[in-house]
Amino acid sequence: MAAKQAIALVAGVGPGTGAAIAKKFASLYNVVLLARTPNSYEATVKEINESGGTAIGFPADVRDEVSIKNVFEQVTKEFPDKPVAAAIYNVGGVFIRKPFLEQSVEGFKLGYETSVLGAFIFAQAALPHLISAARSSLSHPPSLFFTGATAAVKGSPYLQSFSPGKYALRSLTQSLAKEFGPEGVHVSHFIIDGVIDTPKTKEWLKDAPEGSKIDPAAIADTYWAVHQQPRTTWTWELDIRPYVEKW
Amino acid sequence: MAAKQAIALVAGVGPGTGAAIAKKFASLYNVVLLARTPNSYEATVKEINESGGTAIGFPADVRDEVSIKNVFEQVTKEFPDKPVAAAIYNVGGVFIRKPFLEQSVEGFKLGYETSVLGAFIFAQAALPHLISAARSSLSHPPSLFFTGATAAVKGSPYLQSFSPGKYALRSLTQSLAKEFGPEGVHVSHFIIDGVIDTPKTKEWLKDAPEGSKIDPAAIADTYWAVHQQPRTTWTWELDIRPYVEKW
Amino acid sequence: MAAKQAIALVAGVGPGTGAAIAKKFASLYNVVLLARTPNSYEATVKEINESGGTAIGFPADVRDEVSIKNVFEQVTKEFPDKPVAAAIYNVGGVFIRKPFLEQSVEGFKLGYETSVLGAFIFAQAALPHLISAARSSLSHPPSLFFTGATAAVKGSPYLQSFSPGKYALRSLTQSLAKEFGPEGVHVSHFIIDGVIDTPKTKEWLKDAPEGSKIDPAAIADTYWAVHQQPRTTWTWELDIRPYVEKW
Amino acid sequence: MAAKQAIALVAGVGPGTGAAIAKKFASLYNVVLLARTPNSYEATVKEINESGGTAIGFPADVRDEVSIKNVFEQVTKEFPDKPVAAAIYNVGGVFIRKPFLEQSVEGFKLGYETSVLGAFIFAQAALPHLISAARSSLSHPPSLFFTGATAAVKGSPYLQSFSPGKYALRSLTQSLAKEFGPEGVHVSHFIIDGVIDTPKTKEWLKDAPEGSKIDPAAIADTYWAVHQQPRTTWTWELDIRPYVEKW
Repeated sequence: MAAKQAIALVAGVGPGTGAAIAKKFASLYNVVLLARTPNSYEATVKEINESGGTAIGFPADVRDEVSIKNVFEQVTKEFPDKPVAAAIYNVGGVFIRKPFLEQSVEGFKLGYETSVLGAFIFAQAALPHLISAARSSLSHPPSLFFTGATAAVKGSPYLQSFSPGKYALRSLTQSLAKEFGPEGVHVSHFIIDGVIDTPKTKEWLKDAPEGSKIDPAAIADTYWAVHQQPRTTWTWELDIRPYVEKW
Repeated sequence: MAAKQAIALVAGVGPGTGAAIAKKFASLYNVVLLARTPNSYEATVKEINESGGTAIGFPADVRDEVSIKNVFEQVTKEFPDKPVAAAIYNVGGVFIRKPFLEQSVEGFKLGYETSVLGAFIFAQAALPHLISAARSSLSHPPSLFFTGATAAVKGSPYLQSFSPGKYALRSLTQSLAKEFGPEGVHVSHFIIDGVIDTPKTKEWLKDAPEGSKIDPAAIADTYWAVHQQPRTTWTWELDIRPYVEKW
Repeated sequence: MAAKQAIALVAGVGPGTGAAIAKKFASLYNVVLLARTPNSYEATVKEINESGGTAIGFPADVRDEVSIKNVFEQVTKEFPDKPVAAAIYNVGGVFIRKPFLEQSVEGFKLGYETSVLGAFIFAQAALPHLISAARSSLSHPPSLFFTGATAAVKGSPYLQSFSPGKYALRSLTQSLAKEFGPEGVHVSHFIIDGVIDTPKTKEWLKDAPEGSKIDPAAIADTYWAVHQQPRTTWTWELDIRPYVEKW
Repeated sequence: MAAKQAIALVAGVGPGTGAAIAKKFASLYNVVLLARTPNSYEATVKEINESGGTAIGFPADVRDEVSIKNVFEQVTKEFPDKPVAAAIYNVGGVFIRKPFLEQSVEGFKLGYETSVLGAFIFAQAALPHLISAARSSLSHPPSLFFTGATAAVKGSPYLQSFSPGKYALRSLTQSLAKEFGPEGVHVSHFIIDGVIDTPKTKEWLKDAPEGSKIDPAAIADTYWAVHQQPRTTWTWELDIRPYVEKW
């Protein structure tokens, strides 16, 4: 099958949300998958290519500016002259849950670096491509999406290495939406509130009612719906949770 | 064309968002349109019926409990045994913008009654039907949607007859989402931030960049996308604004 | 003891927060206490007068515009030529906690009327006096304070007759702060989050750690501290909760 | 004059808010002033000591864990057996305002490090002392206060190196309030919204109405009022702005 006319990048692809988003966006775009280690994205790359889509993966650490710039250069070589229609930052904040007084400076920095420093680096690499894409005639406005969490709007004990980074990410996305909206780039922040149904969470919530975990494919459908919004009618932020979630 | 298998009600149908939502939901449902006066919905009813859908309209004042209960009874007679798949409260708060000290008690009440008292009455009439629908096998979870405004999250001078009602509505929708989510009813609140492109606003923002007004059809697409979310993956709240909006 | 040079009005005086605020403000002002029935304020009026302050009470229903206007007229007669230094709306929202589908329209309106309609009426009667006081040479800027609740920022199941009114009140206070701040009137909103220690709550939280209830006298100290802020340095909103409160 | 019975530390002391807070808290406590360079605090230390208080200063970079731990060790030696009654993080976020695509990774990190990493390090050093003080019989509960900014609740274009750090700080303070409130430590976050009247801002807002800048001494009074709250009646967050501020 012929390659698609534009590119979607997804950073933070494991077997859950990232894979689902990549598969969804592969219906219209060539997808580029980023993860720290290839085994996080290899199965998804294979699945997309085998089902008629076009996907490639790159190992990259979003905290490493050089690494991310290299990826964008390679993408440009791989898909010359194709605009970037979507760049999605889905990197889960890595963090260490523990009492505040037992947290190390390194542990505290970890959440910041994976949640928001990586987002900064990714956004800076992606935006010139997205701004340029906004001037081409794509079917949907180019999108810069960020996956957030409940911890972006609520601080909790023991989550000092997670929540501040997610608050910071939320703030960054709002700054970006205000700065780059008028340039035609659609910036959105998705607050995922609940347990996502992935291999890792298979044994969680065993006693909860059926459907208590968020479906990654349905998250991907929502990202896709937001991506399809015309520039007159953009969503910056929405929340997503299961019907039985307490909040 | 045969009638559809379920019903969608839209309260607050004029030539803008309400009409667009009705037309969108008419692709899958028999639609019932409510407005205070028939001339608000007649053109849309006609358009839907002529293009192969099924629509009826009822004049009703959402502030009048009896009036709204009557509508639901008539709907039940009109479409016997059909579940209610969606009930959408799109009534724009009526209000009077003026200095606080010139505002009358009646003017202050007006915003409250149209924004949130009407929503209370509409929700109470709709929920038994929606809960019942949640136990049937509809393609999408039954939805109870409310159209809100920026004034739901930001108080402003001269808007005392508008903003408190919108804050109250937002609160009501959160209470309802928490109470009826576990019963399978999807409750959402849409914050519309900007000028909607309707006949009434035709002359507004003449000097603004192209695309500075929100497209009602795109709002309807977003409502539809949220309606399609499975119960594992529900959005309670999202905002919608044009790419050039200052916020 | 000679009467003080200015007046403070407190609406919603029972044996808890209202009484404590009245006693605190009586140290500098003649205080006027409002409640629906005189037995709510009589003990406090007596206590203030016996301890060298000046207090009078008026029965008034804040939902009744005429009743409130009468009070302000009588106050003007009682204390001729004295400016109004503070007007404090401390009326607890009256509401009925129950499942949404069992709530009546009257029950729903009750919370609205006591929380926000009364605040509207009280503010309209008080503001001309406060604006006028802002031009006199009082020691502290005239203040218009409102007691709010957690329900002003969080919707919950079964609280549909309470929370929307508190959201609306919060919005109203923000509108007022923005409109009347520049005129020299200090408008504030106090979010009380927790059980207040009053005769009514004597038996509550029996098994909780010592100090689990909010001290009305300490609330009054906080209101007083905010009242003392100069106009360069005003607080619109703060929260108050016990050290052990979960939130 | 004899040294006071407890200690207050203020990190981030220049000629504005930090100095005012230090002078205010010096009325009851021995105060310890921290700044990166001694010339930031020397005048204030001198002024406090000359007016009968007790003050010492230490140069320290809040981003440097070792430096901050050293300060606390020295403080313990300087004032043996005296509890820490207050620790106030008043470090203004250092940041570089510029278009997002011109911002460097270092510039982005700068705001984070000064706003929130420093706060983390300071809080970790202070909390063991504050928890211990909560078990002694001080007149007021030990306090851990943080100075925030409007940018803590609102993202803006060109402020990507400032606002995310302030959001993160706000989140951190909420986590800390929830974790250490029950241990008797009062954690608060002050949102300063407006220009503070300092030597640096002397020429700003020249054409604005009188009183358009926030008075540092009045900020200090507010911090002091919050410090005096008993543990039954604590404020976590409040905002502060001039009466004419637009918001």
